[in-house]
Amino acid sequence: MYSATDLGDTIVALSTPPGEGAIGVIRLSGDRAIELTGTVFRGRDLSDAPSHTLHFGSIEGPDGKVLDEVVVGLFRAPTSYTREDVVEISCHGSPYILNQLLQLLMQRGARLAQPGEFTMRAFLNGRMDLSQAEAVADLIASESEVAHQVALHQMRGGVSKDINALREELINFASLIELELDFSEEDVEFADRQDLKALVHRIRTIIGDLMDSFRLGNAIKQGVSTVLAGRPNAGKSTLLNALLNEERAIVSEIAGTTRDTIEETITIEGIPFRLIDTAGIREASDQIEAIGVARTLEKIRQSSVLLYIFDIIDTPPEAVASDLAKLSRDGLHIMLIANKMDLNPYAEEAHYADALSQGVGKIAFVPVSAQNRQNIPWLRRQLAQLVLGGSVAAGSTILTNARHFEALSKADACLGTVLEGLESGISGDFLAMDIRQALYHLGEITGQVTTDDLLGNIFSRFCIGK
Amino acid sequence: MYSATDLGDTIVALSTPPGEGAIGVIRLSGDRAIELTGTVFRGRDLSDAPSHTLHFGSIEGPDGKVLDEVVVGLFRAPTSYTREDVVEISCHGSPYILNQLLQLLMQRGARLAQPGEFTMRAFLNGRMDLSQAEAVADLIASESEVAHQVALHQMRGGVSKDINALREELINFASLIELELDFSEEDVEFADRQDLKALVHRIRTIIGDLMDSFRLGNAIKQGVSTVLAGRPNAGKSTLLNALLNEERAIVSEIAGTTRDTIEETITIEGIPFRLIDTAGIREASDQIEAIGVARTLEKIRQSSVLLYIFDIIDTPPEAVASDLAKLSRDGLHIMLIANKMDLNPYAEEAHYADALSQGVGKIAFVPVSAQNRQNIPWLRRQLAQLVLGGSVAAGSTILTNARHFEALSKADACLGTVLEGLESGISGDFLAMDIRQALYHLGEITGQVTTDDLLGNIFSRFCIGK
Repeated sequence: MYSATDLGDTIVALSTPPGEGAIGVIRLSGDRAIELTGTVFRGRDLSDAPSHTLHFGSIEGPDGKVLDEVVVGLFRAPTSYTREDVVEISCHGSPYILNQLLQLLMQRGARLAQPGEFTMRAFLNGRMDLSQAEAVADLIASESEVAHQVALHQMRGGVSKDINALREELINFASLIELELDFSEEDVEFADRQDLKALVHRIRTIIGDLMDSFRLGNAIKQGVSTVLAGRPNAGKSTLLNALLNEERAIVSEIAGTTRDTIEETITIEGIPFRLIDTAGIREASDQIEAIGVARTLEKIRQSSVLLYIFDIIDTPPEAVASDLAKLSRDGLHIMLIANKMDLNPYAEEAHYADALSQGVGKIAFVPVSAQNRQNIPWLRRQLAQLVLGGSVAAGSTILTNARHFEALSKADACLGTVLEGLESGISGDFLAMDIRQALYHLGEITGQVTTDDLLGNIFSRFCIGK
Repeated sequence: MYSATDLGDTIVALSTPPGEGAIGVIRLSGDRAIELTGTVFRGRDLSDAPSHTLHFGSIEGPDGKVLDEVVVGLFRAPTSYTREDVVEISCHGSPYILNQLLQLLMQRGARLAQPGEFTMRAFLNGRMDLSQAEAVADLIASESEVAHQVALHQMRGGVSKDINALREELINFASLIELELDFSEEDVEFADRQDLKALVHRIRTIIGDLMDSFRLGNAIKQGVSTVLAGRPNAGKSTLLNALLNEERAIVSEIAGTTRDTIEETITIEGIPFRLIDTAGIREASDQIEAIGVARTLEKIRQSSVLLYIFDIIDTPPEAVASDLAKLSRDGLHIMLIANKMDLNPYAEEAHYADALSQGVGKIAFVPVSAQNRQNIPWLRRQLAQLVLGGSVAAGSTILTNARHFEALSKADACLGTVLEGLESGISGDFLAMDIRQALYHLGEITGQVTTDDLLGNIFSRFCIGK
């Protein structure tokens, strides 16, 4: 799909969303971008027009008929998105016109761009590294402030900077060890083994932190799957409405956002929570029945948070404990939401000690009144804290890309082998090999190491025109 | 909704279609467009940047956080679409980013543009007249080559030129007559009454031709409503497929074109035909039943073309005549499609004289074989000829706008009154009044005469951002 020879082609694509609009933009990139545009553009001679200039004129078809009046924007290599000559033709936003112009430019010798091919060229031409290029697609898809900030940080080189810092330190050491190999008869150690051990430990800590951030990053990108469960009349739907109402007051509608009909999504401190209301429990008559439990457990299995709501007036603590015993599982974040707190101000967390002990220390007790909206903002904050853990410093790197997570895992495993080797005092050449292997995996993230398959896989997920 | 004071505002809108894409463009127009952009743009100082230049930089929110990396395009008054300062900010095509940037610019003092407000400003600032401005929306909505050509011709001033030529001749005459009024005691005639009569006749002929072209223009813009009817097994669906297949071979898919599920649209020589397959007749068992006829007649009432198909092997000519007697009405174009011509090469048009006489001379006899695709191209040509009438010269003006048609009707009526006045020898002041009234209606088309209501009505049909 992608190969180096393709770089000789001049590519073209519609870069704005399809459909009618005021403006539609068709973009070309490649050696012949300006020349090809010149064959259809009637206006100023583009061949000697300076970079970063705009030109009004018309597009003429092969029959001499005018297709549209347009504005052409020129970006000359290397000061363009792809570092190649780039032309952006701004037409009237008519699907007919845009389609005709695309066909016309293809007739003149441009090739329809593959998805993400403009950004891939930006990568191949050294304008950005691979992790930055990947962030472009994330940036376009991001729907919340946090997701947007994380993608922008990555696009501007945040992840790359961290990874490159690790790589540099490791490269230094690998070089020293490889230098020893040249002097192997003399049994010298340029690379202090204690220093190396300390360095590898430090790097593994940083890698561990980055990998930890992936849980948050994934939540930011995909949303946190959150099950809402409770007995009938516990106040589930009132709570859902309370959470959503607050939401509606805070978040204005963003065009193009779709909302799943079965789930409701709320965004808290920039993190989307996908609230799954469990019909199984909802329709159970008096207590959590077997079938309800089965369905709910299935949902819980796929989720990371459970909001268990109960009526603090007439649910005995043992019943709560019994429900939670059925619902909890390892690694599940549970919030025990004691509803109707306004009617029972003396309800104490201590009464629910049995229930709270089900969750291996992970259960939060949150008294609320869903009806009166008491403590709802606090509940929201608790939910955000579950994910953020109070530890997201501004500008810190958060991993959102599963590919990066995988590469870090592999690098981490290699570094584990390096440490074992250091313990067992293996020879420098084996050490060097393991370090090089760790470097290889780190290099996969920023694209120092790539294959055509990898590139094809990454950029095929982009939209056409980017 | 629209008033002259609004021109003081700097307006802003998303100009590309909503949704995710590689690029989204936000456009500002007004005195403060460049200044407001400068408050959020980090890059080159825009205040002294020349017109028609592009600038890479980033957008910064009030919290100092970077929102996106963008390219800003500058157009300084009067060399812009609106003849005001215009800025186009090209962002990553993320609905979140575009929404945030819109809000940011509104906080800084821009006002969200009304639908069509950019084009309305182009009109108010004299860059185009009203009929040209109206054509912008038609151009964006046009889905076929002919509709596109007609809209482009109008946008580039084709209609205006014709109307203005008429106006000028009339104005000359009106001035001469008004001059007579200043010398009324002397009973002079600066304006020769015979010349005036000839002129008015000539102008009415041109107006008549323009009004005639509206039937074609409307067909081009709205599509020709065409009912497909026939007895069971006459070959209706085979014919529909034959027409559609040919279509699919000719017309490539245009992104964003939607197809009505009940009707099928085919385009012949640039004219869209909306083919309505009548279920009423289709489901009738043996002959055209009462209910089928009622439904079909209802469809026919709303349509201008009827394709009546019959099996030439086993449908007696009397049956065809009887069906047509039920279906025909005044002004309906009927095509009598004799199917299975391959099985009966000796079938003659003459046998169907009775049927053909139903249509007051408007029925075309078209033998085809839907199965073998015989004569299908010819049928298509016949359909196109129905509308085009063989009389559309290249570059000729075709009226597509109902408002223009109405104004021309009124002007024509006034000119009729002028002629009557000339016949009865009424005084110059009455003649002048009627001529001025005709001029008023012609002026409505190009916008020499407008009201806020009229403008609001016209531009509210535009998309926002245009």
